Amino acid sequence: MLADDLPIVLDRCRPEPLAVQVADALRAAASGGLLRVGDRLASTRALASRLGVSRTVTAAAYDQLLAEGWLVGRRGSGTFVTAAPPSARHRPATAAAHAPTSGRPVAAAGAIDLTSGRPCLDALDRAAWRRAWRVASDRVPAGEPDYAGALEFRQAVVDHLLRHRGLPAGADQVLATAGTTDALDELAALLPAGASVGFEEPGYRRAAETLVARGIRLVPVPVDGDGLRVDRLPSGLAAVYCTPAHQFPLGPRLSAARRVALVERARAEGFLVLEDDYDGELRYDVAPLPLLAALGPDVVAYLGTSSKLLTPTLGVGWLVAPPAMHAELLAARERAGMRPSPAGQLVFAALADYGDLARHLRRLRAELTERRARVVAALSGTGAALLGDAAGAHLRVTLPSAAAERALMAAAAEAGVLLQGLLDCHRCPPSAFGVSLGYARPPRPALDRGVAIVADLVRRAWSDPVSG
Amino acid sequence: MLADDLPIVLDRCRPEPLAVQVADALRAAASGGLLRVGDRLASTRALASRLGVSRTVTAAAYDQLLAEGWLVGRRGSGTFVTAAPPSARHRPATAAAHAPTSGRPVAAAGAIDLTSGRPCLDALDRAAWRRAWRVASDRVPAGEPDYAGALEFRQAVVDHLLRHRGLPAGADQVLATAGTTDALDELAALLPAGASVGFEEPGYRRAAETLVARGIRLVPVPVDGDGLRVDRLPSGLAAVYCTPAHQFPLGPRLSAARRVALVERARAEGFLVLEDDYDGELRYDVAPLPLLAALGPDVVAYLGTSSKLLTPTLGVGWLVAPPAMHAELLAARERAGMRPSPAGQLVFAALADYGDLARHLRRLRAELTERRARVVAALSGTGAALLGDAAGAHLRVTLPSAAAERALMAAAAEAGVLLQGLLDCHRCPPSAFGVSLGYARPPRPALDRGVAIVADLVRRAWSDPVSG
Repeated sequence: MLADDLPIVLDRCRPEPLAVQVADALRAAASGGLLRVGDRLASTRALASRLGVSRTVTAAAYDQLLAEGWLVGRRGSGTFVTAAPPSARHRPATAAAHAPTSGRPVAAAGAIDLTSGRPCLDALDRAAWRRAWRVASDRVPAGEPDYAGALEFRQAVVDHLLRHRGLPAGADQVLATAGTTDALDELAALLPAGASVGFEEPGYRRAAETLVARGIRLVPVPVDGDGLRVDRLPSGLAAVYCTPAHQFPLGPRLSAARRVALVERARAEGFLVLEDDYDGELRYDVAPLPLLAALGPDVVAYLGTSSKLLTPTLGVGWLVAPPAMHAELLAARERAGMRPSPAGQLVFAALADYGDLARHLRRLRAELTERRARVVAALSGTGAALLGDAAGAHLRVTLPSAAAERALMAAAAEAGVLLQGLLDCHRCPPSAFGVSLGYARPPRPALDRGVAIVADLVRRAWSDPVSG
Repeated sequence: MLADDLPIVLDRCRPEPLAVQVADALRAAASGGLLRVGDRLASTRALASRLGVSRTVTAAAYDQLLAEGWLVGRRGSGTFVTAAPPSARHRPATAAAHAPTSGRPVAAAGAIDLTSGRPCLDALDRAAWRRAWRVASDRVPAGEPDYAGALEFRQAVVDHLLRHRGLPAGADQVLATAGTTDALDELAALLPAGASVGFEEPGYRRAAETLVARGIRLVPVPVDGDGLRVDRLPSGLAAVYCTPAHQFPLGPRLSAARRVALVERARAEGFLVLEDDYDGELRYDVAPLPLLAALGPDVVAYLGTSSKLLTPTLGVGWLVAPPAMHAELLAARERAGMRPSPAGQLVFAALADYGDLARHLRRLRAELTERRARVVAALSGTGAALLGDAAGAHLRVTLPSAAAERALMAAAAEAGVLLQGLLDCHRCPPSAFGVSLGYARPPRPALDRGVAIVADLVRRAWSDPVSG
């Protein structure tokens, strides 16, 4: 109870000064439960005498702990422990805090991650990556927050959008974001309470969760081989969310005619289009299609992210919204004092400035083209159709039934392979069965192993559709 | 209209290959309005002939633009511009997008920023800063998002909270955030719709805006020289927001007795305490007081940030919540796919690992101690009371009336000095007049100049309270 009884072992061979060792030992005693709030410590003199050190040492240790707020000294009555109540030391970490909650499979160590939306780290040039951080570290640290995002980042995004997505926009039209669903959340906050938003069915579950959490009512709209069925949009919508570059999870690209039709309906009916340009930079053997934001900058809010192109470590995305909405978003950020973290923005800007972003995209396309060919080759002849492989970094593998999908997902997980099942992406009774197979994330050998396992399971599912 | 007519000037002395120059010129033409969607380009042969280059050059330029999605090639009919519609080029940037919206003064170039909540960049060791970015760049880029935040960051926060705030918490109890109001926004999303939250009056406006934007009803609770009047909290609250370390904007610290009383009431009545540990690391000549989160880890959500201690460039903060709430927050992040950007977390962790964070805090305290003394000296004898200077990096300067406050704010702005007025922090009829004067941000000479201007204005306000 008194510091006299505490086990304090000093080691004169350790590099830390003795005073630091004494302070560390007392701190450990308090956080480990040996000392409690209200406990009185031995005097510096008594402790020094017991430990065989000078009183300067123990006084310095107490001073440090006083300064840190662990101890309080009362003149004439000694030194007491003032913080670290026992209850805080024994806070249980609940099991729930660690349980998966999203329905998304969680990668065990050694598992092969074939879920979609993962980056291809193999394409990342680590020397360029390091240089970008070094360049970013030379920027003068900010004295005040920038609610739109770092200017050099927005300029890099302007260049990226113009060169790689054919979208002309000024730096004052770009807002930095922490990613696509973060941006979606900000936009959803501007929609009227209880607003109806058209949503692809099946669709991107995280986007759905984000909108629902803001009190949005989702209206499912079917998807076919040309993307969202624009003709099936009901009236009275406040917005429509879609993934025109590579519909998630089915994989088609929204046809040119439907793009025009969607923008025309948005203008005529006054709704907002939320264009999630997921995988927009990745396209194989097919002509580019104009962005919705290029066709209708007055009615489209455009969302992009670097998480899938580079790595989630940067945590940066971008948002180009119609002017009035841009102003509203910025005003809301300033009112609340919220803005995405700038650190990753500076790294992204440096990557772009040095041409490393463009080089990375070229490498990434080449790598994914090769991977896609291997995946298609491995899966052909299994009986499944392979769909949505003209863009992006995942393709859809059809399965004959919900039961077959569930069985395959379970068997794949058992074999250490993570996939995204289509059942999980439906809000209505499912219209399509199968899995979305992402081929960006694992190193090549693991990819080949994982795909071979999946191919085998898919072949079995189609050869015996009833029991599969 | 045809590429034949475009002004393309090639320069063989420029380092860029000719094909890049041709592609750049065509891109500039499209974004500048010289080319429009649907325009047909000259054949590669015709353009090569006109420019006096080989056809390889023009073909490479067209290939590049095809790959970027600007052009589309139709077999047998030529190459057409497919993206960059004119409407997108001429998007007006609205004036509203640039207008200040928060009521907070906006720093003009050359203005002296004495608002509170700014960092002291003078205390930042740029060599240590650069090293931290270099260390962060050596981390393996992430293949998947980490919804709690980077582990090394959470470990650094654990150490910081234990050593500098006397709060024991495990890394699995810490969530990385993008900052204090971001964390508050996440917490508010968990409260029932229309919930009542006790809020300091006057109080931190950005926190108020954040809560109100989530549909929270704020219940103003008065503040006196011992901080929040805990005895004046009404019943039926879902939560209480407060700034116990240094009440914003009035400056007192919440007394020990009130801390205990607040936690006891929270337990008895089942409300959550939102402890914004604003300026908690800064304290002068006074004993530390236990954190609310240390007294009541079961009922307190603790919020900290690095923006004021270091710089907003990192964009990182932390949140320690009761276990059930921690699990709820993490589940909500996973469902929506949202998490704060990790890049700044890695830099913060590297700063902490190398001992630079602790060294920075020591330097910062020394620098602010000195600055505080100069500010107090400059303002003493002006007739104003100087309050709340025992902690933090701002103090309160009293003024005789609302009119005096408005006049002083206007005169200071006119003289290029930005301050935070107290009127702006009230939701009820104001109970206190004056300004909050932050002394962290400007370099020393500018600080001295700014404070001299304010001192002069304050003296005049008190010498002639009626006309002032």
